[in-house]
Amino acid sequence: MSEKVALVIGAGDATGGAIARRFAREGFTACVVRRSADKLQPLVDAITAAGGKARGFGVDARKEEEVVALVEQVEAEVGPIDVLVFNIGANVPSSILDESARRYFKVWEMACFSGFLCGREVAKRMVQRGRGTVIFTGATASMRGGANFAAFAGAKHALRALAQSMARELGPRGIHVAHVVIDGAIDTAFIRDNFPERHALKDQDGILNPDHIADQYWMLHTQPRDAWTHELDLRPWMEKF
Amino acid sequence: MSEKVALVIGAGDATGGAIARRFAREGFTACVVRRSADKLQPLVDAITAAGGKARGFGVDARKEEEVVALVEQVEAEVGPIDVLVFNIGANVPSSILDESARRYFKVWEMACFSGFLCGREVAKRMVQRGRGTVIFTGATASMRGGANFAAFAGAKHALRALAQSMARELGPRGIHVAHVVIDGAIDTAFIRDNFPERHALKDQDGILNPDHIADQYWMLHTQPRDAWTHELDLRPWMEKF
Amino acid sequence: MSEKVALVIGAGDATGGAIARRFAREGFTACVVRRSADKLQPLVDAITAAGGKARGFGVDARKEEEVVALVEQVEAEVGPIDVLVFNIGANVPSSILDESARRYFKVWEMACFSGFLCGREVAKRMVQRGRGTVIFTGATASMRGGANFAAFAGAKHALRALAQSMARELGPRGIHVAHVVIDGAIDTAFIRDNFPERHALKDQDGILNPDHIADQYWMLHTQPRDAWTHELDLRPWMEKF
Amino acid sequence: MSEKVALVIGAGDATGGAIARRFAREGFTACVVRRSADKLQPLVDAITAAGGKARGFGVDARKEEEVVALVEQVEAEVGPIDVLVFNIGANVPSSILDESARRYFKVWEMACFSGFLCGREVAKRMVQRGRGTVIFTGATASMRGGANFAAFAGAKHALRALAQSMARELGPRGIHVAHVVIDGAIDTAFIRDNFPERHALKDQDGILNPDHIADQYWMLHTQPRDAWTHELDLRPWMEKF
Repeated sequence: MSEKVALVIGAGDATGGAIARRFAREGFTACVVRRSADKLQPLVDAITAAGGKARGFGVDARKEEEVVALVEQVEAEVGPIDVLVFNIGANVPSSILDESARRYFKVWEMACFSGFLCGREVAKRMVQRGRGTVIFTGATASMRGGANFAAFAGAKHALRALAQSMARELGPRGIHVAHVVIDGAIDTAFIRDNFPERHALKDQDGILNPDHIADQYWMLHTQPRDAWTHELDLRPWMEKF
Repeated sequence: MSEKVALVIGAGDATGGAIARRFAREGFTACVVRRSADKLQPLVDAITAAGGKARGFGVDARKEEEVVALVEQVEAEVGPIDVLVFNIGANVPSSILDESARRYFKVWEMACFSGFLCGREVAKRMVQRGRGTVIFTGATASMRGGANFAAFAGAKHALRALAQSMARELGPRGIHVAHVVIDGAIDTAFIRDNFPERHALKDQDGILNPDHIADQYWMLHTQPRDAWTHELDLRPWMEKF
Repeated sequence: MSEKVALVIGAGDATGGAIARRFAREGFTACVVRRSADKLQPLVDAITAAGGKARGFGVDARKEEEVVALVEQVEAEVGPIDVLVFNIGANVPSSILDESARRYFKVWEMACFSGFLCGREVAKRMVQRGRGTVIFTGATASMRGGANFAAFAGAKHALRALAQSMARELGPRGIHVAHVVIDGAIDTAFIRDNFPERHALKDQDGILNPDHIADQYWMLHTQPRDAWTHELDLRPWMEKF
Repeated sequence: MSEKVALVIGAGDATGGAIARRFAREGFTACVVRRSADKLQPLVDAITAAGGKARGFGVDARKEEEVVALVEQVEAEVGPIDVLVFNIGANVPSSILDESARRYFKVWEMACFSGFLCGREVAKRMVQRGRGTVIFTGATASMRGGANFAAFAGAKHALRALAQSMARELGPRGIHVAHVVIDGAIDTAFIRDNFPERHALKDQDGILNPDHIADQYWMLHTQPRDAWTHELDLRPWMEKF
């Protein structure tokens, strides 16, 4: 017990996995979360094989009772959560005319409501200790509502508002809340399979390397409290913005 | 039939009522909507007594089937909707630590999800006609997530993202989508009863007059399409910002 | 003497001219300013022929002593300045690599420094009277520094900062300070001659009509002080943003 | 010759000095610049005493010919400039009503125009090599024009526009352009002498440590080009924002 803990919600994708590995490399126990625990096993194994510590949790972060139980379990069985990373995305573009109520709701539920639940539960513990880091993953859509992105931009704008509200309330209580705007394609299986020309830019560093994103999350956690960053953007050198 | 129609969702408060009266004064049939039809009767009566046309609809704008039916009914029984005003607010401040999942969800459902449902349903009709005006009511919290405002700021940020997404998709199809940021207290019964010192500023024009807000909604509707405003703010002269 | 005065700095282009005509139509004496008084004569004549009152002033608004003298003269000979419109632009795109120090300075001097001089001089009088309207013309570059727009974006960002600073200081003293972001091509001789395909969009209302811009300036001036707009954008319906 | 060079403009204050020391510690030759070369000697000596390399240049960065000569000299005598840090500030608050034209100009000249001159001259060299880092120091006033801050906010807004314009043009040519928004008091002699209660917050990490700011500039320089930050903010944990 009493290990240093990084809780990574949305550890199913390349970014979440890289962040978990990064914190594990620094001696943290990476508590990685996605809906299906089985699918987390390769990540847990990889971290362990590299000499790190990791535990996987199959949790639906949209369910309040599951999030409450998760945070309780991690704090009880592993140790106090020093770092929370919320990294669930859910981008499904659609014309506003065709957007279904169900999809609009689900995108918000995954990309924002889960973030609220996780943020609140972890913050309750962190304020008692007067320290901790909470990092939310943002996107271009956090800043701008583009055509065909009403659902995703709505969820991401709301998540950014959550990050700001939490930073303004919890910063003076010792909690570092940050929001990372990722503006560009990430080197993932999804991009490779669906946008091959985009993925081909990898040779010129034209898409984001998840490990480099993870470095920034680590950097944010290690900032001394007299010089905290609330928001930074990350994009490939050749990305238009 | 075939009258000009302004559909005002959230006509229960002073602002929604003033907007309805303003459009009625210009010859529109004001179709006013809130959950309880009974409570709308005074507004409908007032508009009628002033020589205007109005109809009240008791609709829960968070329910997709009710919104779909409302828009169908208005278009069938009253006339094509020229103007949609979405004006539902739901501000309940809370520390993030005490915010309940139920309340966080409800604020979003009222202040954002309803706006999506109404916006989508009306937009489907407007694009067929290649014209129409959609106005969303925003707030200071649309731009900034303050301490204790995670829920409200989240909903309002998401609504602003919706307004931007719709403007960028539907502007080129002839629909004018606008977002009005109201930054200050409005002269309402709520402010009068709960913030009397604030309300006392009325004598010096220190709180917003709903009729003056309504004038701006009318102004937005009448802008020629070569010079549309997407966003404007409104605040009393003495308001800090 | 003692007439209502609208002082329009940068009345040489279509927008400034339209604004002057608009205020003249409302009974204001339009005091129109550009560097060469001769070139103002057609505008003054047009306003007079339409039954309005106008006076032209050949003033280099970059020169402090000329601006001081202008404001003194107008207040002494015509009447108290109720409205100041600052409308000088100066867009000369250039790669940062080729931008000359002289041009970078001149763009700022014209589009920002002149605005400071005029704003300050007029504000000194307005605060004594506790009322007045000051409107600055902004552009897309007020919000975003694009490639090849370092000089123009710099000047326009600085002008927007001036508008905000003045609004925050002078609003509580009764002065309405507003900033209008014009995002699109305006129907001017310059656009017609240099961007003919752009200008051809006029048939579809794809470029801004100066008279419609002027209507918004008038609207801003007439807003009651409990509901002032500090910033609004104006763009054609088909403009990407 | 052919050393790695970091050119720090505005090395007279605590922040500039810390940045110079930081890059020197990493093996860079710190070329430090302020108007008076004499006053730079202590900084150059301190870096040298710590085993680093440094050179001082007495240059008025507002003078084009001096900046051109400086960059030529550094590239010829020391080596190719890998990093440019522009760190000149010039905050002199004033009511808009009392602001002098001379001071308004001087603030812009120091805090913005110098940045343009340095940025342009260095960029010309960097684009030939297809790499380099340019970092501009921003402030709260970069984002918001507050009452009594027209001059400083104007200059800082313009500098931010410069940073954006350069990033958008030069990013795709391999130059990393970043803008750091410092939002809070820094631990400097100025703050200690003029705002002693503010400075007393140092005991609780309530003011920024220049060395921690410098760490972030170094971090920005070392970001791999697939994950560049254009803008980040830095503020003490207890700072309101």
